[in-house]
Amino acid sequence: MMDGKIALIEAGGTKFIVGVGDASRQIQARTRIDTTRPEETIPAAIDWLRQQGGDYAAVGIASFGPLDLDRASPQWGHITRTTKPHWSMADVAGPFARAFTCPVAINTDVNGAALAEWMWGAGQATNSSLYLTVGTGVGGGAVVGGQLVHGVTHPEMGHIRMPRHPADTGFEGTCPFHGDCLEGLAAGPSIIARWGASLSDLPSDHIGHRIIAWYLAHAIATFQAILEPARIILGGGVMESPGLLARIRSEAVEAAAGYFAGRPQEMIVPPALGDSAGLLGALALTLVEGHPHSAGAKRQ
Amino acid sequence: MMDGKIALIEAGGTKFIVGVGDASRQIQARTRIDTTRPEETIPAAIDWLRQQGGDYAAVGIASFGPLDLDRASPQWGHITRTTKPHWSMADVAGPFARAFTCPVAINTDVNGAALAEWMWGAGQATNSSLYLTVGTGVGGGAVVGGQLVHGVTHPEMGHIRMPRHPADTGFEGTCPFHGDCLEGLAAGPSIIARWGASLSDLPSDHIGHRIIAWYLAHAIATFQAILEPARIILGGGVMESPGLLARIRSEAVEAAAGYFAGRPQEMIVPPALGDSAGLLGALALTLVEGHPHSAGAKRQ
Repeated sequence: MMDGKIALIEAGGTKFIVGVGDASRQIQARTRIDTTRPEETIPAAIDWLRQQGGDYAAVGIASFGPLDLDRASPQWGHITRTTKPHWSMADVAGPFARAFTCPVAINTDVNGAALAEWMWGAGQATNSSLYLTVGTGVGGGAVVGGQLVHGVTHPEMGHIRMPRHPADTGFEGTCPFHGDCLEGLAAGPSIIARWGASLSDLPSDHIGHRIIAWYLAHAIATFQAILEPARIILGGGVMESPGLLARIRSEAVEAAAGYFAGRPQEMIVPPALGDSAGLLGALALTLVEGHPHSAGAKRQ
Repeated sequence: MMDGKIALIEAGGTKFIVGVGDASRQIQARTRIDTTRPEETIPAAIDWLRQQGGDYAAVGIASFGPLDLDRASPQWGHITRTTKPHWSMADVAGPFARAFTCPVAINTDVNGAALAEWMWGAGQATNSSLYLTVGTGVGGGAVVGGQLVHGVTHPEMGHIRMPRHPADTGFEGTCPFHGDCLEGLAAGPSIIARWGASLSDLPSDHIGHRIIAWYLAHAIATFQAILEPARIILGGGVMESPGLLARIRSEAVEAAAGYFAGRPQEMIVPPALGDSAGLLGALALTLVEGHPHSAGAKRQ
C-alpha cells in the first residue's frame, strides 16, 4: 500500500481527465482538459496538479496509444505512431517525471482499465480476466497470474482476425491496416459504414444486432482458446446498445460448442467501475509498481 | 536448482516416453511404453522408474490432454473428456504421486514444450514466447513474464476462429467441435481431407502450400494482437513440409500489415530442442515449482 496523494491522468484523444487520489481509491479532486497539442495539454495538466499541492507519492498515467513501454528505450512513455495530429512520438510520461520527483507509471488506457477491473471490479477474485472495450475502436487488455499480459509491447486485441458472418459478405471492413479484423468488423465506425446508424439507433429486429453479437462472440471464442479467462468484461460505447450483452452470451455458447471451460453466462460481464474507470486505471498502474512487466513504474 | 534424479514422463496418445534426468538436463535413461489402457500403461511406467533406483526428487509429467490442472479439484492431474478410448477421466498424476514420495508436476505436453523452449530453446532470453505444434491437431502454449499462460484451465490454442482463404471456400473443416477453427483448417487431417495427401507429398506448386501458410500466418497475426510474443516457435509434423516456414514468414508480413511490433523474419522460428523436447518439457515443469500458476508441482 502506498501512502500519500497520487496524481492520476487519464489521457484520451479528446480530453485529459486529471485527478488526485490515494491508494484507498478516494478521488479527492478532478478536472477536464481538452486534448489539443502535447505542448499545451500536458503543461496544463501539470499546472493543475501543482495547484492541488504538488506533493505526490506517485504519478499514474493511463493513456491512449500505442505507447512505447520498453523501459530500456529512450522513447519509453512516448506515444508512437498515431493518426491523431500532433501526437505521433509525443512524450507523455517525461514531462510528469520531470515535474514531480516521484515514480511515474504509464500504460495504455485499456490496460489500466483491465487492471483496475481485475483489482476492484468485475474481474475481482479471479486468476485471469480480460477487458475489452468496443467503441470507436476495439481494444483489450488481460491480467493473467496477477500481471498484465505484455510481450514485446502491449496487446492490440482489436486486430485479431475473424471469420465472416454469412450475412455480412461484401463488406471490406473499416480497419485501415487489416480491413476486416475485429475492429474493422465490429467497432462503431463499421456499424455506421454498413447500416448508417449506431447499433442503439437501429430497430431492435435489425440484423445488425445479430451480426455484431456474432462477431463479438466469435472473438470471445478466440480469447478463450488462447487465454481461457475467468472473466471477459465488455465495455465501450457499442456495448451500451440494449440487449447486446445478452445476445453475445447466447452466441458465445454456440461459438464455443461446449469446448471451453469458461461458461458464457457467468464469464461475460459488464464493467463494474463506471465513470471513474479511467482514473482508477491510472491508480491501479501505480500500485503494481515493481511487477516485472508492463504495469510498473519507472523511477527517474 | 533441484538436486537429485527427476522422473520424467512424456505421456502421449500412442506412447509413453519415460526417462530419468536431472536439473542439468542430462537424460540418463529412457524407455518407450505403448499407450494402451491407463491401468496397464501407468503401472508399467512406474515399474520401470522403480527399476532405475526409484529415489526421485520430483516427477514431471507432460501429458496429452485436456487435463484438469486445478489443484483444488479432486480430479487434479486427470485427463478430462477425450475421444481416446479408456482415457476419459483417467488419473495420470495420482499413481505417480502415490508411488513416489516427492512433488509431482503435471501439465500438457504442449505447455511442457512451450516452457522448455522458453527456458532452453528457441524462446530463450525473451520475455514472451509462444509454441505452436501443427500436426494431427494444433496446440499451443505461451510463456509470458516467466509463467505459462493459464486461466480457468490450460489454453486450447488450436481452436481460435479464422478468416477463410479466398480459394478455400466450400470446405467445412475437420474440427468436430468448431468445423473451421485453426485446427479444422490447418492440421494434418484437414490437408488430407481436402487434397488427399500430406503437404510434404503434394507438388511444390500445389495451392495447398499457399493456403496452409496463409492460415498459419493469419493465426500468427491473432496471436500477435493478443500476446505480442517475442518468439513464435512452430513445430509438429506439418511444419516438416519443405518451404513452409519461409512461406509463413512471408504471408505473416502481409497479414500484419506493419501493425505489430514483432517482425516475422526474426520472430517466427523452428523449435530448438529436437527429439528430447517431450522429456525436457516434463523436466521444465518440475523446475518452476512454486510459481503461482499452472506449471507448478503439487506436494502430496
